[in-house]
This record gives sequence, C-alpha cells and structure tokens, in this order.
Amino acid sequence: MLPFISVADVSALIRHRGLGTVVRELSYYIKADFLRWNQFNKCERTANHATTGVIELMPIDDGEYFSFKYVNGHPPNTAHGMLTVAAFGVLSQMSTGYPLLLSELTLTTALRTAATSALAAQVQARADSVTMALIGNGAQSEFQAIAFRDMMAIRKLRLYDIDVAATQKLVANLSTFGIDITICKSVAEACKGADIVTTVTADKALATIITPEMVEPGTHINAVGGDCPGKTEIHIDVVKAARVMVEFEPQTRAEGEIQQLPQNSPVVHFSDVLADITKGRVSEGEITLFDSVGFAIEDFSSLRYLRDVIPNPAQMLDLIPEPANAKDLYSLCAIKYQENRV
Amino acid sequence: MLPFISVADVSALIRHRGLGTVVRELSYYIKADFLRWNQFNKCERTANHATTGVIELMPIDDGEYFSFKYVNGHPPNTAHGMLTVAAFGVLSQMSTGYPLLLSELTLTTALRTAATSALAAQVQARADSVTMALIGNGAQSEFQAIAFRDMMAIRKLRLYDIDVAATQKLVANLSTFGIDITICKSVAEACKGADIVTTVTADKALATIITPEMVEPGTHINAVGGDCPGKTEIHIDVVKAARVMVEFEPQTRAEGEIQQLPQNSPVVHFSDVLADITKGRVSEGEITLFDSVGFAIEDFSSLRYLRDVIPNPAQMLDLIPEPANAKDLYSLCAIKYQENRV
Repeated sequence: MLPFISVADVSALIRHRGLGTVVRELSYYIKADFLRWNQFNKCERTANHATTGVIELMPIDDGEYFSFKYVNGHPPNTAHGMLTVAAFGVLSQMSTGYPLLLSELTLTTALRTAATSALAAQVQARADSVTMALIGNGAQSEFQAIAFRDMMAIRKLRLYDIDVAATQKLVANLSTFGIDITICKSVAEACKGADIVTTVTADKALATIITPEMVEPGTHINAVGGDCPGKTEIHIDVVKAARVMVEFEPQTRAEGEIQQLPQNSPVVHFSDVLADITKGRVSEGEITLFDSVGFAIEDFSSLRYLRDVIPNPAQMLDLIPEPANAKDLYSLCAIKYQENRV
Repeated sequence: MLPFISVADVSALIRHRGLGTVVRELSYYIKADFLRWNQFNKCERTANHATTGVIELMPIDDGEYFSFKYVNGHPPNTAHGMLTVAAFGVLSQMSTGYPLLLSELTLTTALRTAATSALAAQVQARADSVTMALIGNGAQSEFQAIAFRDMMAIRKLRLYDIDVAATQKLVANLSTFGIDITICKSVAEACKGADIVTTVTADKALATIITPEMVEPGTHINAVGGDCPGKTEIHIDVVKAARVMVEFEPQTRAEGEIQQLPQNSPVVHFSDVLADITKGRVSEGEITLFDSVGFAIEDFSSLRYLRDVIPNPAQMLDLIPEPANAKDLYSLCAIKYQENRV
C-alpha cells in the first residue's frame, strides 16, 4: 500500500507549523539538493501543449531516489473557477522502481517556488532589501510574500495586478502578517523604490510587463511567471542588462526570459552561486535577474521534505499489486469459474 | 476529488467479466486509437536508469485527452518478492490540464500488452495458427496465453522458462482454460512446430533467446520482452530475415530488437497494417516479427477503457485543491493566528 499525502494533509501541515516555517524548512531541503547538483540525473521536462495551456512531466533522480511531478499551466482556467496550475507527484526508490509516496503538489508547488525564489534572492538581492514589488496577485502571491518576509526580511510590499479583486484578496490574506502594503495603479508605480521586483503573472504570451525605465539600479528581479516557450514577462533590454541566474540551463534557454537572447548569452548557475563558486551579484548598482522556470530538483526536494514531516499519512492507496508470488500476477484476478466461452 | 481505480477494482473487473473478455474489449480501444494514429501527439518515453532497472514516464495526447504511464522494469525485484514491472497512470483533460482519473496500471499493462500482442498476431500470424511457444512464464504469461486463446484461437501452448517453478505456476493457472499444454526442456524444443513464438523474458541484456535454426518458415514471432536499449531477445539474423512490424518507430529503433540493425532497416508500422495501408505478412512462408516495446497510446486506450467500464470507482482522492476562489489557493492554508515570529 502506497502512502498518499492529500491536499488536506499539506493544508494541515501549513496551518499547524505556519506558512513561513514550512517555506523556510523546505528551502533547506532545496538548498541541500542544489548543493549536490552533480549527483542528479537531469533532463528537460516533457510538455504536451493545448491551445489553452500545457501539461508537463518533470522527472529526476539522484541514483537513490526518483521523483516526477505532473503539472499543468492553463491561464484560462481561473475564468471557470479552476486553478491555473495544479500538480501532483511521486517519490520512488531507484533500486526497485517502486513508488514510496504519492502527494499533492499544487500547494507544494506554491511553497517550493516561493522557497526557491527567496533562496535566490538571498544570493542575488542587496542585503538591505526591505521593499518588494509584487506584480501578479494570483494563487502564488501570498506564498511569495510570506517567503520574502520570513527569508529576506521584506517588510514593504507594492502590489499590482490587472485584476483588482486579486489584489484585494491578497491584501486581506496578508492583513495579519505585519507587512506594510501599498496598492499601486500600474506596474511602473509598483516598481518605484522597490529593492526586489517579483513577477508572478500567468499569461501565456511574450508579455513585457517589466520595461527598462521601471527598473532602478541595484534591483533584483525575481521572474517567476515566464516559464514556457513563448511566455515571458521581462523586456529584452532588461534581461540583457541584468546578471542572469538560472536553475537548469537547457530548460531555461527554452522556457525562461533568456529565450529572447542568443543561446550563448552569459548566465550564472544557481547551484554554483549557492556553492560560492560564482557570485549572484557583483556590485550594489547591478541589476540581477533570477530567471526562474522551476526545475524538477525542487519537487524532488519537496517530496523528500513531505515524506520526512508527514511520515505516516492517514491514507494508503492500493496502487501497486502485492501478490504472494511476484511471478504470479494472475493470482490477483484468478477466475473461479471455468471460462470456456470460445 | 479525483476518481481512483485501485488494483482491487481492476482485479474485480477481470474476475467479473472474465480475462478473455476484458482483453478483447480492451483490444477494441487499442485498435480504435491506432486507427487514428495521426491525431496523437507522440514522443519517446523518458527513462531514468539504475543498475537494477529503469523508471519510465510515457506521455501522449490526442488534443482532447492526455495520459501518461509511470512504469518500472527491475528484473532483480522478483528475488525480493517484488514485481519486475509495476505501473500506474493518469488520464487528463487537455483543455484544462486537470486529471480525470488515477489508475493502477500493473495488471492493466499485462492486459494491454497481451491485447496488443494478439491484435498484432491477427494481422501478422498465419490465419491457421493453433500452436504457440511461450518463452518466459512469469507475471505476464497467463495474460498472453489467454489473449491468444480468445483472440487468435490458439489451442496448444509449448512452454519454456529457465525457472521451472514459473512454468508450473503457469500450468496450474491455465488448468481450467481448455488449452493443450506441453512443458518443454529448451527454447528450441518449445519452438518446434509452433505457429507463433511469444517471448516474454525479463533479463536486461542483449540475450539471444531465439536463434535462426529454431524458427520454422511461416512463424510469427511476438517479441514482448526486449524493450530497452541493450535489452533484446532475438538473434540478429532472425530479425534481419523477418518482416518487422513496429508500434512507434523512433522508440523501437532505440529499444526494440531492431536496435541490432542499421537505422534504415525496413519496418512496417502497426497503425498502417491495421488500417490496411501495408501488409503485416505477404506470404505463408515468411517469418514475421512484432517488435513490441509497448507504446504510450496503448496505455491511453487502457485508461479510456477503464474510465468507461468503471465510471464510478469507490475511492475519490483529495489530490487537486478546490478553493472557492481559484486565485485564492492560500485560503486552503489560512493561518488563524497572527504569525509574527520574525
């Protein structure tokens, strides 16, 4: 029987431990895995495209464990009361190929994306950053806000979304977190005075949400929403001017903001920066960009974390057969009556 | 909540309808999907290799539905009481990216592999075939035997396995099916007088189980076990001499028996043969080979079939969040107390 971590299980985990704590704990797992980057067998995710969105599978292994995430990205979904991004995943043992855990990964994707964003900001943003512009106030925005409050000491948020109701929802949800919030009327206004600019928009288009005149010297841009071929958020001149950090280069070349640049444009690798091999930022006035598209290792870390903090979930699934004799799979469907229909 | 079809559900389906019926019904779904081959968005499966085996993800979509299968292949597992092959999969809606069904696919893989083998034999084996050699008497052998009894009128089986206990198990399981069984002491003996030779062995090696002198003119070879780079069952000269039919050519070039031949060796496509565009066999004396490695479309068909025959499974999973407001994912983990730890 396979342990199953449900949406309710992850919800309860967050309620009991606190969102900030869960994001921070998860960030330790993500950092630990990025620090052993070369142990992983990495590949680009598979992608099946519809006109309305994409379904991706993200496999990875470290020789001992395997994981994959199923995740979709369908911006029109919210118009029908459905999530833009839904996800689930499995952690398995490489030696046997058997799954060890099936888990929800929708809430967890929001958690791990926020944790990864904040980890990246720790090595790219100026240490004195206190103000963050948050462009896109949808499903992931609370997670980003709280991750940056708890992992980066961000105390002031400047919010903008084309959907005013989304911003109002975010303000209401953050009301008890002690964050100074300013609602802005444009992206440009939100970026004014921001030390960090986080973009988490969902449009599947070559959008240019952040243009050069909006970005002040020394800004760190945390570009979360552009994560698909043909989907970007940042103007090409901003990307060109910035020190760009990537998770897994081949995937980011195809899906990230740097899809706008030549294949040999300079980048630094998140794993190298975490390991102090390269610098994420070299000067106070530099513009830095975390060109985040999300990588399988972050889901691998998340599944490891969930397995550790929810070791005995309430539900066990009858997903893999357990015949008494492994070569007698048929015993599970033995027919008691003589089948002589032919 | 996501419908979940468990191992027990598929076991019950087989017990209630009969294995032969389920395999035949499933073959109609598989045939229908192969007949609309060009509607599918196809890709090779991902593969994460361990020294003991491999974990694969097999995605596919037809524009309306998406499916993937997770499947492992770990021959050493049986020594520890575990299955060589375990699998599960998901059917999803392309327009929303949401999963519609999670199902066990271990039993179902045995069903769909047998159904596909028998479908292939219908278009490649001689119509008067009555005797089949079954080399490899492990977990999949009963499914092959009954599929060929019910879909090809095979009445005589000649069995061989290096594991005598496996053969004894198969004989016991088939005792009520009215099949004339001969236990053989070698592969060569099993092949004698066989109209069809089915190989379902599991070794992850370039094995040559079937050599030229064993194969009589007019034989159809159903090669099920060689399905991985570096894993074959049939001697290169047998493959060269045969009319070879493949499911999805790029995958079979890498994983099938034809990995032993040049990349441009002649093959015919299963979908073309089913559609009567090409012939699976052109003469009575010809040797034909179904170089089966298993393709995602067969699992897609299986999930469609399971959804139709088990429309309301007993278990529903809390796998995908359902917040009242799709942009308010955070509502599912709202913290009731002021979190002011920082």
